[in-house]
Amino acid sequence: MNHSAVPSRVCTEVVAAWQSPGSLWSRLKAACEEDWKRYLANDFVRHIANGTLPSSTYRHFIEQDYLYCLHFCRAYALAASKSRTADELHRSLSRAVTILDGELALHRRLLTDWGLSADEIEALPESSANVAYTRYLLDIGASGDLLDLHVALSICVVGYAEVGAHLLGHERTRIEGNPYRSWIEQYGDPDFQALADSVRDHLDQVAEGRLTLHRFGELVRIYRQTLRLDIGFWDMAYREQV
Amino acid sequence: MNHSAVPSRVCTEVVAAWQSPGSLWSRLKAACEEDWKRYLANDFVRHIANGTLPSSTYRHFIEQDYLYCLHFCRAYALAASKSRTADELHRSLSRAVTILDGELALHRRLLTDWGLSADEIEALPESSANVAYTRYLLDIGASGDLLDLHVALSICVVGYAEVGAHLLGHERTRIEGNPYRSWIEQYGDPDFQALADSVRDHLDQVAEGRLTLHRFGELVRIYRQTLRLDIGFWDMAYREQV
Amino acid sequence: MNHSAVPSRVCTEVVAAWQSPGSLWSRLKAACEEDWKRYLANDFVRHIANGTLPSSTYRHFIEQDYLYCLHFCRAYALAASKSRTADELHRSLSRAVTILDGELALHRRLLTDWGLSADEIEALPESSANVAYTRYLLDIGASGDLLDLHVALSICVVGYAEVGAHLLGHERTRIEGNPYRSWIEQYGDPDFQALADSVRDHLDQVAEGRLTLHRFGELVRIYRQTLRLDIGFWDMAYREQV
Amino acid sequence: MNHSAVPSRVCTEVVAAWQSPGSLWSRLKAACEEDWKRYLANDFVRHIANGTLPSSTYRHFIEQDYLYCLHFCRAYALAASKSRTADELHRSLSRAVTILDGELALHRRLLTDWGLSADEIEALPESSANVAYTRYLLDIGASGDLLDLHVALSICVVGYAEVGAHLLGHERTRIEGNPYRSWIEQYGDPDFQALADSVRDHLDQVAEGRLTLHRFGELVRIYRQTLRLDIGFWDMAYREQV
Repeated sequence: MNHSAVPSRVCTEVVAAWQSPGSLWSRLKAACEEDWKRYLANDFVRHIANGTLPSSTYRHFIEQDYLYCLHFCRAYALAASKSRTADELHRSLSRAVTILDGELALHRRLLTDWGLSADEIEALPESSANVAYTRYLLDIGASGDLLDLHVALSICVVGYAEVGAHLLGHERTRIEGNPYRSWIEQYGDPDFQALADSVRDHLDQVAEGRLTLHRFGELVRIYRQTLRLDIGFWDMAYREQV
Repeated sequence: MNHSAVPSRVCTEVVAAWQSPGSLWSRLKAACEEDWKRYLANDFVRHIANGTLPSSTYRHFIEQDYLYCLHFCRAYALAASKSRTADELHRSLSRAVTILDGELALHRRLLTDWGLSADEIEALPESSANVAYTRYLLDIGASGDLLDLHVALSICVVGYAEVGAHLLGHERTRIEGNPYRSWIEQYGDPDFQALADSVRDHLDQVAEGRLTLHRFGELVRIYRQTLRLDIGFWDMAYREQV
Repeated sequence: MNHSAVPSRVCTEVVAAWQSPGSLWSRLKAACEEDWKRYLANDFVRHIANGTLPSSTYRHFIEQDYLYCLHFCRAYALAASKSRTADELHRSLSRAVTILDGELALHRRLLTDWGLSADEIEALPESSANVAYTRYLLDIGASGDLLDLHVALSICVVGYAEVGAHLLGHERTRIEGNPYRSWIEQYGDPDFQALADSVRDHLDQVAEGRLTLHRFGELVRIYRQTLRLDIGFWDMAYREQV
Repeated sequence: MNHSAVPSRVCTEVVAAWQSPGSLWSRLKAACEEDWKRYLANDFVRHIANGTLPSSTYRHFIEQDYLYCLHFCRAYALAASKSRTADELHRSLSRAVTILDGELALHRRLLTDWGLSADEIEALPESSANVAYTRYLLDIGASGDLLDLHVALSICVVGYAEVGAHLLGHERTRIEGNPYRSWIEQYGDPDFQALADSVRDHLDQVAEGRLTLHRFGELVRIYRQTLRLDIGFWDMAYREQV
């Protein structure tokens, strides 16, 4: 491990991304190009795309994602509690409610269909990669400001939307007969793309008047770390780890 | 000031309240009887009841209550962020959304009718009594557990419901021609009473399996302090203080 | 109250202060000149200066300041918990320990000399102005970033140092035979001035690479609000309010 | 995975541990016997004991432990910020300072001896297992009360002391010529055992008047999860994972 090589390279990438045009999201993504490639190319997503993911793996993913959604919702509630205007409060609360009434409820129904009781759902063991990701989000919220937190929260929404669009547009993706067709279509769907657009826009709003190169560098670190934790989540799901 | 007399008297009251039957709310109230009397008998409420409150005072109250609602909503969001189950999350988020879409929006409309622009509403100066009350709530949430926070949050809802019921049932209350008739009826209304019932019930649920005399004593301190800060809020409004 | 006049005046002051040379502290002070004059000229400090403050008032101040120091120390601990480097951690922990072993211990000895038992000290009733100030600090820490928190924390240290220097250099200050001579000399002392210097310097360090006009405007709001809460603390002490 | 078998077995263990005599620590340990065995028997510790741990593995452990200590210190600062008495504040601040001036400084010296610059130390990549453990601690502090947090914090101190004592008393442990002799002796040392004693005692103090079977059950869940995250940390170190 050659530590000394790291800082200066990172620095050049960050400055270039900082000077690039576009939304904050696209500039953060530009600063983390290699991690982003790994994100798109992970095994879990590849096997979703061609429909070869074992059903036990998918079930493990849903179980962990159920727990993830709980804490993801808590993190949006934390964002609401850190808000200083009614608009900000409204925005974060709406997202929290959508996760709770949307994704969490959907997962819950699936788990119930698979035979899990309410108590068993509540007692699902949380994988280490899941703890790492969710508690990192909550800690960014506790230790940083609202912009730090929204950058960390954005990966899961916008990242999934970009994965969905990527899969739908990719020649190797199998749609017909793919047991995970609904998963691909859910995240590739125009509605989910619009949600991602609004999250990207909101990031620019929260960042307005706050960005300096120094702050951008901090946000890149948060973005990269979150991206890696998201890859870690998919790897954990793929390997059915607890 | 005779400090030495205080602790033992408090202690007897607390033990008696602890041993009394009924809901946690009613036992907390029983432990704070004198403060509770002061709460019901405050000048602001008395002048609301007979309709003699100056309109400038009412306006000051609404301006401060607008700011209060913002932070009250943040405190419910904090409760959501501290939740460990989907039910708890759901409960606190719903309350937060109700405050935001209900009371806050109502106040906002009133302030707009009175000629305040959006920027002026955002820039309303916050009175010290308001800062004390709202930030105390948020700090109880940060330093204590969910039960501590819900005890502190309950005063504003259940307290107002008990004031509303008290006023509606009181012979000295003037209804006809009272410019504050809608205020009295809003909090005395069966819907608001039902909300207060559900808050009281929820307190018992959160407390289930957690109460000891020691914990009850801590909750009494939080309940009493919150009650006093609520009285302080009414006094501030009555005196049109900033 | 002419709300509409406020924003633009504030804005001009803020821009002028933003463009002025000097440390962040001095620029924040420049943006809040009128509040700063009220801060220096408050009744409590004037009567300390000429030695006419009633001893009961001073005692009330010390009792409240004891409680203040507890929460002020908690706020530095919160700053430590939000730190991302060992240096930042070290800095905030040292301040917290100094408050606890220094001012808090001194106040405790004084209260004990005045006949209060440990239980009585623990049970001192906290004034509303005290709750407002301390919980505001803690909430700025919870809702904002480390810079927001350090701006809010700086008033109490640097403000007292500036009051101390002001009093020592003022012709109307009575030193000989003034029962509050040690109070004046403590805050005017070169050691306390050096502490204030280091707090001012630290503010510049934390702010490095983060300041924009927008951020500066936010910090001005925090600085002004904290200043007012500090004046409110002195007023509360002067009037022996609980 | 047979979910349905889990809850009732756990429950019996928890009730038995709850009814067992001894300190809170020993009762929590009794409720998590199997995890505890895995904790003592992990590969990292076994290879420390017989001196066969590769030096690169040890170096990886120290690098990660350096980062761990930073966040562990933050978690004690969080405990300080949640304290309601001077004694509690003092206790948590002292621990935080000890970690910072003790273990963190020691690790830093070691890393410097190994040729890392200050910037490289600051930029060490944090492993997922490390993120999981440290942010879990911080989240327990944010979402629960002081007792929850102190239970979670206790594992790292008391657990290491029990490992140290275990190794020193174990016939298979090699002391002479073991490159990790100082590691074993540090944690087996009477001073470290005394520190662990004081942490165990403190747990009983914080728990005083608060324990019910329900609360004990919650603490068992936190204790078990923390124990597993600590095992995960050792596994990560042993496998040199990032």
